Amino acid sequence: MADDGGASAEAVTARFAAPIEDALARHLPAPEPERFDLSPKLAEALRYAALGGGKRLRPTIACATCVSLGGQLEAAVDPAAAIEYVHAYSLVHDDLPAMDDDDLRRGRPSCHIAFDEATAVLVGDGLQTLAFEVLADAPGLPEATRLRMVRLLADAAGWRGMVGGQACDMDATGAPPLSLTRLQRMHAAKTGRLFRVAVQFGALSALPDIDDRRFRHLTTFGERLGLAFQIVDDVLDVTQSSDQLGKPAGSDAALGKNTYPALVGLDRARSLAHDTLSEALRILEGLGLRHGPLDALARATVERVR
Amino acid sequence: MADDGGASAEAVTARFAAPIEDALARHLPAPEPERFDLSPKLAEALRYAALGGGKRLRPTIACATCVSLGGQLEAAVDPAAAIEYVHAYSLVHDDLPAMDDDDLRRGRPSCHIAFDEATAVLVGDGLQTLAFEVLADAPGLPEATRLRMVRLLADAAGWRGMVGGQACDMDATGAPPLSLTRLQRMHAAKTGRLFRVAVQFGALSALPDIDDRRFRHLTTFGERLGLAFQIVDDVLDVTQSSDQLGKPAGSDAALGKNTYPALVGLDRARSLAHDTLSEALRILEGLGLRHGPLDALARATVERVR
Repeated sequence: MADDGGASAEAVTARFAAPIEDALARHLPAPEPERFDLSPKLAEALRYAALGGGKRLRPTIACATCVSLGGQLEAAVDPAAAIEYVHAYSLVHDDLPAMDDDDLRRGRPSCHIAFDEATAVLVGDGLQTLAFEVLADAPGLPEATRLRMVRLLADAAGWRGMVGGQACDMDATGAPPLSLTRLQRMHAAKTGRLFRVAVQFGALSALPDIDDRRFRHLTTFGERLGLAFQIVDDVLDVTQSSDQLGKPAGSDAALGKNTYPALVGLDRARSLAHDTLSEALRILEGLGLRHGPLDALARATVERVR
Repeated sequence: MADDGGASAEAVTARFAAPIEDALARHLPAPEPERFDLSPKLAEALRYAALGGGKRLRPTIACATCVSLGGQLEAAVDPAAAIEYVHAYSLVHDDLPAMDDDDLRRGRPSCHIAFDEATAVLVGDGLQTLAFEVLADAPGLPEATRLRMVRLLADAAGWRGMVGGQACDMDATGAPPLSLTRLQRMHAAKTGRLFRVAVQFGALSALPDIDDRRFRHLTTFGERLGLAFQIVDDVLDVTQSSDQLGKPAGSDAALGKNTYPALVGLDRARSLAHDTLSEALRILEGLGLRHGPLDALARATVERVR
């Protein structure tokens, strides 16, 4: 039975919050140092990086997809946690001085500030490993499905996906502006692929034998959702800066950052986000999933203000 | 049919060298930039880090274990490459300024020197991801075996294994000396676990349904081999320093490095290496694998001079 009762994005997020946090905590070293005495500092830093708040958007999408398709939430939470570990590892490494050099993350000191750089490198490394370990052991799923998830996550996170997108972003910062096509490819790799995997994992958790056509449509929905998220992220970056710093919209371009507003202007970026959302919602409608939790999450992704 | 014809370690290494290098190259972005235009620099750096020489000891052990047990080499090369990707990623990250700050690796500039730090972080991240992708797709092995390999490698490489051992090493450097028990635990995690996995992957490539008793003995052989390797590594570090720098043996202790010679002295470290080798060879004998390629590799590990 598909669960497509209407719900606000807040209600959807609240519904899955505790199971997701439980799953994230369960696979990390326990907080008592005596449980992992090889390096109590590493244990603490792993928990700091993975359990330190955050919107949990990707695992929420995975869980929402699973229950929308009539699946059991229990089957989705570990695959969902695996995606969040990869996301958390990428934030820890992206914040390093050699990368984006951010001292703050989610309102707290970044991992390399709260601990040190060496620990932050190792925390990112260990969280990535943990993602694959958790997938391999995910309860309630056939072996073939778990193996398929390992393959999907590795493809999304590796040099063709997230890591390649981040490298492209580093290469392009301060260089001549990217074309819109190239900007979209970069973001599809850097951000979009994890959103896509979140939807795919939710689908496979509910229906390990899902037919190819349905899986393909859900995959495209995940891609559209990831693209809409990224455009809105870029727009909020500019408008928040305008409010807070009095910096004119679009000045990020002068700093060499490749963003949608910098490339096509704020108005066109906003309409691009809405067009992408419409596409995503149309796909949901075709799948019989309109007015459910995925619909609410997709709308909230574009309408959010932070 | 078990392959246990006697052979020198050089012959064993030479026999598997080309298949291992082929497998390592096959899963990386092709050298022509147009094949991976998202970031040609990342593509080049990945190849630089993974294909830049090295003894290939871990994948050689995996291949030697497989053929010793009568398996087909083809089944072992991709799992062997996965282990080498993890080893290569750990070297790239360990060489970073925030970690061991080494400018040279295998006689060439380290990855962060040849490229830059951001690229080195991403190269390490991408090589780790690739290891799991290659395991998930390893040809000629049942799904259950590939999933078991993902689990074994993740456990060996993650916070309980290699990453935890490296964190322990960083914590202990410059601190009061570790006890011998703790030093062995640190090295078992940091180095030993990948050796163990190399033997395990070779065994599972040859015999996906290997019985537990035999698998356990092979696992212990891998542990002993890893320990012997590490002790000899520490010994060579001291003796090479003595010859080259005129630095008295054991002075590493003054620098705060935890090594076997620093902790128990050079003579006892050497006899510890030989005792560990003897244990490893006894296990091989019990398995009917004496006088084969594993025997040759184990002896060479302890008798090597570099």
